[in-house]
Amino acid sequence: MQRRQLIRGLGATSLALGAFAGGVGNAQSKSQFRWKMVTAWPKNFPGLGTGANTLADLIGEMSGGRIEIRVFGAGELVPAFEIFDAVSRGTAEMGHGSAYYWKGKSEAAQFFTTVPFGLTAQEINGWIFYGGGLELWKELYAEFGLIPAPCGNTGVQMGGWFNKEINSVEDLKGLKMRIPGLGGEVLARAGGTPVNLPGGELFSALQKGTIDATEWVGPYNDLSFGLYKAAKYYYYPGWHEPGAILEALINKKALETLPADLQAIVLNACRVANQDMLAEYSARDPVALQTLLTKHNVELRRFPPDVLARLRTISDEVVAEVGQRDPLASRVYSSYKKFLNQSKEWSRLAELAYLQARDQTT
Amino acid sequence: MQRRQLIRGLGATSLALGAFAGGVGNAQSKSQFRWKMVTAWPKNFPGLGTGANTLADLIGEMSGGRIEIRVFGAGELVPAFEIFDAVSRGTAEMGHGSAYYWKGKSEAAQFFTTVPFGLTAQEINGWIFYGGGLELWKELYAEFGLIPAPCGNTGVQMGGWFNKEINSVEDLKGLKMRIPGLGGEVLARAGGTPVNLPGGELFSALQKGTIDATEWVGPYNDLSFGLYKAAKYYYYPGWHEPGAILEALINKKALETLPADLQAIVLNACRVANQDMLAEYSARDPVALQTLLTKHNVELRRFPPDVLARLRTISDEVVAEVGQRDPLASRVYSSYKKFLNQSKEWSRLAELAYLQARDQTT
Repeated sequence: MQRRQLIRGLGATSLALGAFAGGVGNAQSKSQFRWKMVTAWPKNFPGLGTGANTLADLIGEMSGGRIEIRVFGAGELVPAFEIFDAVSRGTAEMGHGSAYYWKGKSEAAQFFTTVPFGLTAQEINGWIFYGGGLELWKELYAEFGLIPAPCGNTGVQMGGWFNKEINSVEDLKGLKMRIPGLGGEVLARAGGTPVNLPGGELFSALQKGTIDATEWVGPYNDLSFGLYKAAKYYYYPGWHEPGAILEALINKKALETLPADLQAIVLNACRVANQDMLAEYSARDPVALQTLLTKHNVELRRFPPDVLARLRTISDEVVAEVGQRDPLASRVYSSYKKFLNQSKEWSRLAELAYLQARDQTT
Repeated sequence: MQRRQLIRGLGATSLALGAFAGGVGNAQSKSQFRWKMVTAWPKNFPGLGTGANTLADLIGEMSGGRIEIRVFGAGELVPAFEIFDAVSRGTAEMGHGSAYYWKGKSEAAQFFTTVPFGLTAQEINGWIFYGGGLELWKELYAEFGLIPAPCGNTGVQMGGWFNKEINSVEDLKGLKMRIPGLGGEVLARAGGTPVNLPGGELFSALQKGTIDATEWVGPYNDLSFGLYKAAKYYYYPGWHEPGAILEALINKKALETLPADLQAIVLNACRVANQDMLAEYSARDPVALQTLLTKHNVELRRFPPDVLARLRTISDEVVAEVGQRDPLASRVYSSYKKFLNQSKEWSRLAELAYLQARDQTT
């Protein structure tokens, strides 16, 4: 009873109780904060859904159970594309999704996922954490009562699965392809017909010929969807998504009710999960690629240089236009573009020149 | 007084006190664990030394001050190359260095920093966290009572500063270059003379002509050393160090005395610091490169293809030999080599093909 008296005496009931329970190591049964995390992925979906689970586990472990997070798959609590609003209004304290889904809120959101011919995973972490990116992202979400954090990255994706050969820019005309976001805008301007379909419908759409092609992620995720069974060619590189960021959404008020140490734990757990997912893709894509090539005899094709050149020209135009659609988008574009230009110069001497030397193809 | 009675009553004085103090936010003055971190860098050295500071700060914040870490620069408590032994015997609870310094303990250590023509920063995180690398590294350090954690990465480095042009493999003969570790072994076998000098002596050695060339890190660190004033050419790419890991050394017994939540905080803080340093280099190298080129008129040179091809052939031989020097090195080499081969295949379609498409140089 002394314990209850003490806590009442301090006038900080739940706070002190939780901290105390953490200290004596039996906190699991006495979580101080029970949070919900809504996600845009099917529960336990490899890479993306498991990345959300990793985040919840990290927060649980580092807080000694003082924060306990229940993860909901898409549709369990709210549909995938409603997680932003759900976390904004506090239905859930956290979310795990991707910023380009929220371009209806602001066009600027798209810069915080990935941009055609834009920054790679490693580069975008530089922009986010040391190039002013995170401050702009926070500003963008502030009016919705949300704090964003990068929380995973797929790395460079593949170009997609095709039943039609792409030998020239002419072949893009009339191409019916599932390709969402900015990549879709670029394809449309190149004469193609972008289609948006959820992941679960890609296989049958390809098989029935409703679409000529689809992009998804990369070998690890594509293998598990069985897309190789429904397409003739596997094209590279993924010019449209060179390193897609997954995001954590955090309700600002919920975060601010936490003591400082738990706030630091939540935010840093996102950083761990951010790196962890990229490490997972970096290990699993190469293995899945081997399986696709040797077990399923997948035929690889590289987009021809003139096709890539055309897509790059259009991409630069599209991205510049997005960067003029509202005042914040303009500031985000300006910051992103400056960082991209500098990164290109550096990667020519560093990552690119090194990989060429290692590969000895040039 | 109730507070003291309560704590005595529970029979867990220091533990409960620390946790409690954390909860009420005044823990800095009542740290439960005061740790020392010895480092291999000058105090506050940009990137490396500040990375160690970041790690200490992260642990302090996430633990609510329950762990307080004092960071020592090289030579303050022990010399740079004695930090491994110091943490092993418990003189300090943590260290921040780089595994290739400890090849005297086991040749296998070198695989946990960087290998000529080996894995990039992104790839090596894949190997460490999802490819079996960390388990092998833990096994290697276990007999010293140490737990290792990757804790920073420089990304692809530069080839170095030269006062002699390298136009052919012949020009490597007699080249007196500061290049430590495996890169040095490779240069020796190519006919050059590798020299080992501490960073602080590079400038004068270059200027006096004691050496013909030196590698250091990349634009960000090289600029602050002023190396451009003492050399004619800045060569790329850094074939010898494609993504050097910095490590945290943790005394195993010290870690095990922590409650589970603090153990998770220490280990995950290393992961945050690991990503943070790479993000910092990814943002600062491009800016420093601009300064070197536009303000200091540095002359860039790319190693010729036949020179890189020769260095690569020798590197493969040297690395394979290291992988035969002891039984653990053999297992580490085998795991690393398998991962590298798969990563090469994947990067050809992903990072390399994408950067080429973005750069439009091929």
